[in-house]
Amino acid sequence: MNSFGTLFRINIFGESHGPSVGVVLDGCPAGISLNAEDFVTDIERRKGGIQKGTTPRKEDDLPIFLSGVFNGKTTGAPLTIIFENNNTRSGDYEKLRSFPRPGHADFVASQKFGGYEDYRGGGHFSGRLTVCLVAAGVVAKKILLLANEAVSCVATITEIGGETDTEKGLQKAIDAKDSVGGIVECVVTNLPLGLGEPFFNSAESLIAHAVFAIPAIKGIEFGSGFAAAKMFGSHHNDALQNKEGKTATNHAGGILGGITNGNDLIFRVAVKPTSSTPKEQQTLNIDTDNVETFSVKGRHDLCIALRVPVVLEAVAAFVLADLLLLEQQVGRVLK
Amino acid sequence: MNSFGTLFRINIFGESHGPSVGVVLDGCPAGISLNAEDFVTDIERRKGGIQKGTTPRKEDDLPIFLSGVFNGKTTGAPLTIIFENNNTRSGDYEKLRSFPRPGHADFVASQKFGGYEDYRGGGHFSGRLTVCLVAAGVVAKKILLLANEAVSCVATITEIGGETDTEKGLQKAIDAKDSVGGIVECVVTNLPLGLGEPFFNSAESLIAHAVFAIPAIKGIEFGSGFAAAKMFGSHHNDALQNKEGKTATNHAGGILGGITNGNDLIFRVAVKPTSSTPKEQQTLNIDTDNVETFSVKGRHDLCIALRVPVVLEAVAAFVLADLLLLEQQVGRVLK
Amino acid sequence: MNSFGTLFRINIFGESHGPSVGVVLDGCPAGISLNAEDFVTDIERRKGGIQKGTTPRKEDDLPIFLSGVFNGKTTGAPLTIIFENNNTRSGDYEKLRSFPRPGHADFVASQKFGGYEDYRGGGHFSGRLTVCLVAAGVVAKKILLLANEAVSCVATITEIGGETDTEKGLQKAIDAKDSVGGIVECVVTNLPLGLGEPFFNSAESLIAHAVFAIPAIKGIEFGSGFAAAKMFGSHHNDALQNKEGKTATNHAGGILGGITNGNDLIFRVAVKPTSSTPKEQQTLNIDTDNVETFSVKGRHDLCIALRVPVVLEAVAAFVLADLLLLEQQVGRVLK
Amino acid sequence: MNSFGTLFRINIFGESHGPSVGVVLDGCPAGISLNAEDFVTDIERRKGGIQKGTTPRKEDDLPIFLSGVFNGKTTGAPLTIIFENNNTRSGDYEKLRSFPRPGHADFVASQKFGGYEDYRGGGHFSGRLTVCLVAAGVVAKKILLLANEAVSCVATITEIGGETDTEKGLQKAIDAKDSVGGIVECVVTNLPLGLGEPFFNSAESLIAHAVFAIPAIKGIEFGSGFAAAKMFGSHHNDALQNKEGKTATNHAGGILGGITNGNDLIFRVAVKPTSSTPKEQQTLNIDTDNVETFSVKGRHDLCIALRVPVVLEAVAAFVLADLLLLEQQVGRVLK
Repeated sequence: MNSFGTLFRINIFGESHGPSVGVVLDGCPAGISLNAEDFVTDIERRKGGIQKGTTPRKEDDLPIFLSGVFNGKTTGAPLTIIFENNNTRSGDYEKLRSFPRPGHADFVASQKFGGYEDYRGGGHFSGRLTVCLVAAGVVAKKILLLANEAVSCVATITEIGGETDTEKGLQKAIDAKDSVGGIVECVVTNLPLGLGEPFFNSAESLIAHAVFAIPAIKGIEFGSGFAAAKMFGSHHNDALQNKEGKTATNHAGGILGGITNGNDLIFRVAVKPTSSTPKEQQTLNIDTDNVETFSVKGRHDLCIALRVPVVLEAVAAFVLADLLLLEQQVGRVLK
Repeated sequence: MNSFGTLFRINIFGESHGPSVGVVLDGCPAGISLNAEDFVTDIERRKGGIQKGTTPRKEDDLPIFLSGVFNGKTTGAPLTIIFENNNTRSGDYEKLRSFPRPGHADFVASQKFGGYEDYRGGGHFSGRLTVCLVAAGVVAKKILLLANEAVSCVATITEIGGETDTEKGLQKAIDAKDSVGGIVECVVTNLPLGLGEPFFNSAESLIAHAVFAIPAIKGIEFGSGFAAAKMFGSHHNDALQNKEGKTATNHAGGILGGITNGNDLIFRVAVKPTSSTPKEQQTLNIDTDNVETFSVKGRHDLCIALRVPVVLEAVAAFVLADLLLLEQQVGRVLK
Repeated sequence: MNSFGTLFRINIFGESHGPSVGVVLDGCPAGISLNAEDFVTDIERRKGGIQKGTTPRKEDDLPIFLSGVFNGKTTGAPLTIIFENNNTRSGDYEKLRSFPRPGHADFVASQKFGGYEDYRGGGHFSGRLTVCLVAAGVVAKKILLLANEAVSCVATITEIGGETDTEKGLQKAIDAKDSVGGIVECVVTNLPLGLGEPFFNSAESLIAHAVFAIPAIKGIEFGSGFAAAKMFGSHHNDALQNKEGKTATNHAGGILGGITNGNDLIFRVAVKPTSSTPKEQQTLNIDTDNVETFSVKGRHDLCIALRVPVVLEAVAAFVLADLLLLEQQVGRVLK
Repeated sequence: MNSFGTLFRINIFGESHGPSVGVVLDGCPAGISLNAEDFVTDIERRKGGIQKGTTPRKEDDLPIFLSGVFNGKTTGAPLTIIFENNNTRSGDYEKLRSFPRPGHADFVASQKFGGYEDYRGGGHFSGRLTVCLVAAGVVAKKILLLANEAVSCVATITEIGGETDTEKGLQKAIDAKDSVGGIVECVVTNLPLGLGEPFFNSAESLIAHAVFAIPAIKGIEFGSGFAAAKMFGSHHNDALQNKEGKTATNHAGGILGGITNGNDLIFRVAVKPTSSTPKEQQTLNIDTDNVETFSVKGRHDLCIALRVPVVLEAVAAFVLADLLLLEQQVGRVLK
């Protein structure tokens, strides 16, 4: 199913080369100010054409509200936002159908959906749909601020191609005429203690669930993460300092027993290299049943990780907005 | 909520020192042979007292069927299995309430549930509840075999305390009189292509969601995982070889676009060191509001990662059993 | 939440005087032929302006596909259909805000949503959104036919204003210059035996749930329904005749133990009189806090029950389509 | 699925002749006093052996808490309550398997679950499971009182066999040596305005959904219900009297636009005659494939409607408890 959440519920739809992609947000509190300008910054951050390493595809991504906003405020009814797909060239893709692109969903999509899938530009599997996640994030961030004006949810690239100097990692890819992966870290500050549940609705479970909805993510770790596996307990444990929950260290990454503990929530994700690399590659020619060499033409990101931070913030924000509503830290109607 | 799944749905309940812990499995296909002996192997694997590094606490964990089994076969009605808690000593825990244990949920639980939580032995947050996950896994593994008799789902410890020679890592902890973390890898073979959905119900999303329901897990990666972040695309991409979906390499870990691709499904998790270490530690004394030194007495695992493999198999199996039912690869009634 | 269903999931959004209303259908099988013409008949049946007793408001309701259809067939990705709102006159409504209309949601909506609701023409509560239900029904009916080409799902008005001669009942309302209620019956034939579950997912539970999503419905009964309450058991029981499940009578209305039994599924609903009656009425003047006489101007249906049959068919169809998918009587991809 | 609810979630399990039946309540607020005695009154009301017309089967139904209660209060963790099945005679049922009882689920259950179902005494379809609903209701009624101490939720039989003098209706059945149906009405007073949502989560949708989980219910109507279908709008509309939402009449039954409007919530259900009548009946002999005469031996209720009021209160209470939590009228932890 293409939906997620319990009280703040997100549904996404659309295809890369269809008329539009969109999102329906159900359960959004009533009374939140919302207009198209609120979306500009985050949508620009997600776009290509700005940074070295992202595609020049131009997308005039203005959110169009189909429902749920009235007189500039959310109404409490489902909030529907669409983004039109204006700048697509379907012709680029149709002839490639015989060559399922390595690292892409082309082949599995075709098998799963019996060949009925919209295969143009990845169709429903396209990274294009992350604009819907970003839009949901803009709304979710507003909800987070209802709980505490000091909440911040910020993701940054910490590594590209193994280099913490990200410009250096990117240059390696440019020099190699190849794509490259990266690491993105997200930090959420000033969250209330008590969000999440033991076991299936742990804060980690819900965040990880949403994070793996972002294409190209191959790993996630909270706090010390994989490094914790190498530690002793006496080192890893964070000593409680006061009744607000502050701990002397934060190896746990702000979550204990599945529940936020009043410290910064910190997690990192691994982003694989962009599947569409300029390099020649091999794949099966479906028509001939032979493995053949081919290359992906067109505009592509050298490093998709560069686009991930704003998307990561968005999914973290909508998971946390839902948890805030569940914990009644945010009202269903703005007072 | 303490439930998970769409068609094969798992609900767990219970506390460490309550009368019993249990699991209700809803949506289990009718006609599957099931008796208490089917659970022995996996429950023994989860128990302490067997391997160096796990606690000697003895648990005669016989599953008791309360519903859903008739004449030795599942009926299609909810399947309820409980495990009685016989070997508990509540007296060990009550006096410790003033000292929230570092790395445990004690403090957040008390804050979230207003002090009403059952705090004995971690209460509902206890690792004791993983026996419910294991029981669900036993049933789920039987469902996987309905799709393909050759399916296997096997997890193993690959690293303890940073050592791939796990005995060596364990000995380090013993020598240090401390607890230690580890890495566990799970491999599922012979899965059908096509399980999972793009975005929110990606196979990675669902597996990660369930995996972070296991206490002490701090990270998960699929295929090359975090290493992918350092790779070039031309290296990371797996070249398709045939129409069954086999690829020349398997950096993707068996999932593309959120969907199983016919190759081995591979993921690894980071397990933090057991929070209850023999070492003295610091925490807040709730009564005095001072940070004080204390030590956790009693029986505890040096390396909780040793108990994780069978639990990891279980959660992978019930996620995949649900996906098989969703994809109609398994019928609702055994023929 | 504005969504419903397990595998075939319907989400509706929009307001009477917003830019459009719409529906996202998630889980629709791939490969079903779908084009705008498929919707014409059912959408026309729902419209006013055709029969005596319905409003002359003209709605050129052409479905616009935003996603999920490619080359004239469903893709298996979320199917989004919107209907633009062209023929609205917001000016009619704004001045009425001080007078919550009796029988309408005006007052409760204002209280629940803190005054942020879109109050024009009933906003999100408007009967306008039933066009989304009808659209979902068009798709759902196609799914029913995948299970059995002979399935039919037909609703008819059986009574208006207490008269089984419906023209007579309608004339009474015209003569009285008042609105009037009615009874609508839905019969589904050639359904497979075995749809639905005991208790919470009984076929009756799910159908009733969906039916009460239709505005103005105040009651539902299956088979003999309320008449059963007056019967003896020996009369009400339906004697099983053969292994296909056929019974000598059908007082049960095709459902036993929550599960379809192979006979015609029959239910009836009570539709209240249109709340907007031409008669003068009393309500609270919110500004003066006095109860005052007022009258609703504008175009309104004398008998909203006349529009209900196609909507009733639609909700029955999408509940049953979901149950067919759950019972694996319909595949996720058309062969 | 055998579960229901969003925040206050009920899961039921068990069979008539299995070891026990039970309920898991997830999302119950922490801090509510709860002990076995709280259940006595409602469980006694549900029992047979008390009133003329109900079965003499004796059930010592003491609730056994498996989880979620600690020191006499709910903990916020899943609350599990079981009831042992002590007084069952399986021998009565096994020989009847060739004769699917008319009006029962025997035949559909066997077809749906492939013959694997527990067929003793109706198995999972048994009215025995309504004790689980009643137990959930006891907890739910406590939650309702958290919102307003004056809330009451009371159901009564208003008609048996068509007679409003219920003793008379019952005597008709006794004289006829037959079973008989009835009408039960439920009234909930002092509910807050604002519970429920437009469309799929309307208060009517949720209540009807839960009500049809009660075996033998064949119809439900809110307020004037089916009588509304015969009314004019000017008569049916309830005139708003004040800003608390009070209306001059209550034809709507306390719900407008799917949302409680501050007046008494009123609904009635039709209960079919007990399927197991003392009369001889006809059914298919599965072994011979002939329609034959048979009679159901043993203890049975003449009028199952007599047991329904407490069950009806229970399902109304847990739907409303969930809506109170959703609307944040009740906290997740008792202050």
